Amino acid sequence: MLENPRSPRVRAVAKLAKRSTRQDTGLFLLEGPQAVREALHYRADAIVDLYATPTGWEKHPDVRERAEQTGHEVQFVTEDVLHAMADTVTPQGIIAVARQFPTGIRDVFAAEPRLLAICEEVRDPGNLGTIIRAADAAGADAVILSGRTVDPYNPKVVRSTTGSLFHIPIVVGAELSDVVDRAHAAGLHVIAADINGDDLLQARAQGVLSRPTAWLFGNEARGLDSEALALADQALKLPIYGRAESLNLATAASVCLYESAFSQR
Amino acid sequence: MLENPRSPRVRAVAKLAKRSTRQDTGLFLLEGPQAVREALHYRADAIVDLYATPTGWEKHPDVRERAEQTGHEVQFVTEDVLHAMADTVTPQGIIAVARQFPTGIRDVFAAEPRLLAICEEVRDPGNLGTIIRAADAAGADAVILSGRTVDPYNPKVVRSTTGSLFHIPIVVGAELSDVVDRAHAAGLHVIAADINGDDLLQARAQGVLSRPTAWLFGNEARGLDSEALALADQALKLPIYGRAESLNLATAASVCLYESAFSQR
Repeated sequence: MLENPRSPRVRAVAKLAKRSTRQDTGLFLLEGPQAVREALHYRADAIVDLYATPTGWEKHPDVRERAEQTGHEVQFVTEDVLHAMADTVTPQGIIAVARQFPTGIRDVFAAEPRLLAICEEVRDPGNLGTIIRAADAAGADAVILSGRTVDPYNPKVVRSTTGSLFHIPIVVGAELSDVVDRAHAAGLHVIAADINGDDLLQARAQGVLSRPTAWLFGNEARGLDSEALALADQALKLPIYGRAESLNLATAASVCLYESAFSQR
Repeated sequence: MLENPRSPRVRAVAKLAKRSTRQDTGLFLLEGPQAVREALHYRADAIVDLYATPTGWEKHPDVRERAEQTGHEVQFVTEDVLHAMADTVTPQGIIAVARQFPTGIRDVFAAEPRLLAICEEVRDPGNLGTIIRAADAAGADAVILSGRTVDPYNPKVVRSTTGSLFHIPIVVGAELSDVVDRAHAAGLHVIAADINGDDLLQARAQGVLSRPTAWLFGNEARGLDSEALALADQALKLPIYGRAESLNLATAASVCLYESAFSQR
């Protein structure tokens, strides 16, 4: 049982909340039974260490069983130690340290994708997490992060994907013009989500959305810059029928991705 | 200039962060230039007091002009006072106290609505705010809150609606069976968003979504209970094409509302 919340080992885990530590180590933090369960199911090979309070371990027999099957031994820790390791206030008794597992951009395009989400300069962890979750739900083939988009292994992103981080390939640190070149070479239609674009409903009626598509989403405050927009084949906007000025980025992206998923079926 | 952050007046404003105070006074708090601007445009009559730091007031000429037009005088306050009044860390120099302006349920149905969002037991302020914003964007006629749904005048809800609170009629404290009765009497099709429902895409292909519709959304963790489900004419789910277990409530609601808006056009 690890009992000292100030021990070097505990501090090393806590430091994974910092981007620089995640970059240096290639590791990240999973908090709570849901994230750990999904990781054990889909990326068991990535899990390096598993920590739980005796109560937390007792409470989640499904996680326990799965960890036995994959040969992961739990390290018991006190509540204080768990609290010191975690980024959340309530990690619900279980956390894990895992290796990051970004997908290479070549692998994404080699798999003949039909629906991609490209996030350029998306900064809010909750937005990125929600987009990853929606892309997973809509059956997208991958999410590609370009520009200074927030790190998907940030604890807040990990939490808000609610497991989807482990389901869908994610490319990190891509260069937008390279991504678009590859998308074109793979026969994908590149659509920028942009507030000055054409009406999405009209485009849908014209059959645009039934083509294999890479959606390009920009920064939550500034949108896509003119250079990024120029790379796309077309810009579309979700029409605003009421008085709202705009939609939240994650909401807009979710509707766009589902519209493509529906039109492709 | 109000300078004492511990004065009774400042405390009275700060207390509006509490539901009980909002209920007793019928007032609520608007934070930041965007919320105040929207309120001045759409509900100027509801604004009781306007507070700003001299810098905040200087920085937002559009708010200043609009306040002049509507005859609202600003009370200058120090940074400390503004901070003490506000719920957010950064109210950006301007806040206001306003009267709540819930819409009566009779008025909603008298206006022959074609698209409504009913939120039953929605508890997360961010989710409710995002649903109100999406309902506004999708051109819904009103949002109806039933059961123990979070108070729309909660500062977190107000912030996450980004102004839509002032654009779209909102009914507070409704009783679900009464709402559904009125919806049926008004010829609306009542659709429950439910994870065990029929496939939304199939329903769309059958023309179901082109009818005047009241969408019923439930609690983020538990969904709708069996009683609530029994009131609806039909239950639909957003199909999950990937491995995600579910979608975030606000995301799912946004897609459902936009699908109806599109089908009705």
